[in-house]
Amino acid sequence: MPDPAMPDLPLTVRFSASEGAWDAWAPALQAALPGMRLSRDGDPARFDAIIYAPGGDITDFTPYRNVRLVQSLWAGVERIVTNPTLTQPLARMVDPGLAQGMAEYCTGWAMRAHLGMDRYAQDGVWRHGQIPPLAPARPVTVLGMGELGRATAAMLTAIGFSVTGISASGRPVPGVTVQPVTALDQVLDTTQILICLLPDTPDTRNLLDARGLSRLPKGSWIINPGRGTLIDDQALLRALDQGRPAHAVLDVFRAEPLPADHPFWAHPGITVTPHIAAETRPATAAPVAADNLRRAMAGQPVRHLVDRARGY
Amino acid sequence: MPDPAMPDLPLTVRFSASEGAWDAWAPALQAALPGMRLSRDGDPARFDAIIYAPGGDITDFTPYRNVRLVQSLWAGVERIVTNPTLTQPLARMVDPGLAQGMAEYCTGWAMRAHLGMDRYAQDGVWRHGQIPPLAPARPVTVLGMGELGRATAAMLTAIGFSVTGISASGRPVPGVTVQPVTALDQVLDTTQILICLLPDTPDTRNLLDARGLSRLPKGSWIINPGRGTLIDDQALLRALDQGRPAHAVLDVFRAEPLPADHPFWAHPGITVTPHIAAETRPATAAPVAADNLRRAMAGQPVRHLVDRARGY
Repeated sequence: MPDPAMPDLPLTVRFSASEGAWDAWAPALQAALPGMRLSRDGDPARFDAIIYAPGGDITDFTPYRNVRLVQSLWAGVERIVTNPTLTQPLARMVDPGLAQGMAEYCTGWAMRAHLGMDRYAQDGVWRHGQIPPLAPARPVTVLGMGELGRATAAMLTAIGFSVTGISASGRPVPGVTVQPVTALDQVLDTTQILICLLPDTPDTRNLLDARGLSRLPKGSWIINPGRGTLIDDQALLRALDQGRPAHAVLDVFRAEPLPADHPFWAHPGITVTPHIAAETRPATAAPVAADNLRRAMAGQPVRHLVDRARGY
Repeated sequence: MPDPAMPDLPLTVRFSASEGAWDAWAPALQAALPGMRLSRDGDPARFDAIIYAPGGDITDFTPYRNVRLVQSLWAGVERIVTNPTLTQPLARMVDPGLAQGMAEYCTGWAMRAHLGMDRYAQDGVWRHGQIPPLAPARPVTVLGMGELGRATAAMLTAIGFSVTGISASGRPVPGVTVQPVTALDQVLDTTQILICLLPDTPDTRNLLDARGLSRLPKGSWIINPGRGTLIDDQALLRALDQGRPAHAVLDVFRAEPLPADHPFWAHPGITVTPHIAAETRPATAAPVAADNLRRAMAGQPVRHLVDRARGY
């Protein structure tokens, strides 16, 4: 007998995402919510909920008047939250797989920076003598202490890095030195690896401009899998030319896919990855979406509801 | 008043290591053992102990008849343990910095393999769609569960990897599936990242030969910061040509420095690093050496005494 608090009613859900997403997501979503009728078209008035990712066909949410929840498959919602036709509750995706995947991406690239892997060219030269310090002697800063920032800081701390977290809330994180945004400039002065995990909001746009970047020590690395808008693109190119930072690993951009003629591709101090760090994996995210749809249908509070005023 | 159990007596210690090691080590050793007279030459009979690393001037230990301990600065002792003139007790180096450094090296290269970093050429092509599985779905095998193997397995486990440890002793390790050496072939069948941390002994030489390597799945990686003798060089080159494994990261070699004309340098499936993974760092290792010298002088059991029969 179904639990009346968590009904698995036959609900009707509209799926709107980029080409190809259907094949990746539909089986996992259907498995997580067997009673659901999931479809990619049909009369807007008959849908109870929308599962959404950018690149789909829905641009006007007005006719979806019976929708109780728009569940984003992405953590970042800046491409939907500004849509004036969206009046239905919007939830962003926060799934354990996403936080784990983001932490893995950040940790992997931080280790590449930390170990100086790129020193060892395969040219027959035995470059002994350049031994990195141990992780506890390597100051790493995580800019943004949300779900993803906390998971990343925890993984870096487990390896032994000395981690500072810049946090708007000031909420303590075990093993991490938490600092307010007002301390950012001072923290940048001694940061050797800077990981950017802030959302895109009016407050965070170009937070890392020419002035902020110039505070980073020579040889430092920036890893940005947060949002492309956090860093001033032109200021970054000029800062890299001066070796402060020495290298930037960028996963997010103002325009995606990053155009083939963008200067980021050609700059030797930049590594471009194709927005893969915050990939939601259907196996772990579909159950989270399913749980939120059940909550919405039962009239219970949904998780990770977007605050329109804050923009995330 | 000095503790009689742990005397800091004025002891006389001979230092024998490669050119350059003196400048790196002498200050840290002197700071860790202020009462010590450390020197690079003098009458062999007057020395109480020897601090040793390969590449120094001592080849005949016979005249050092009052030496109570030969303390190696290296974890690997195969270049000294076979010296027939060595009858004094020999201790290998096991310091927390070394284990941490080794774990960082292995974890960093494992993450490079895991995340598929080398897919993302900086050529203007947006290669989305090749998302790695999360770490729990990535089987990693650590071959050798000594101090270094256990530290490495612990770090990989903290990240979330599914870790199997091949252990001679069978001693349990938290979070790790421990298997005996007899299960190696079966474990190799499903290993995607193989980390070799065995010592060099008659039993481990060419343990990974053509037959063993052929069991690895397509696309797998080998990371060998253990000993160059563990893998059959020619078999590895042939196995890489067939993509099983897809890549090998090698830090140790039968001859070091690896000759500039060695085929390992030129093979696209091999990354050579110059024996940096197990670097002992004076800041963390000198206090360990000092503690062992104090123990030897006090007639107490020294730590990490080498068993001549086992060879490590």
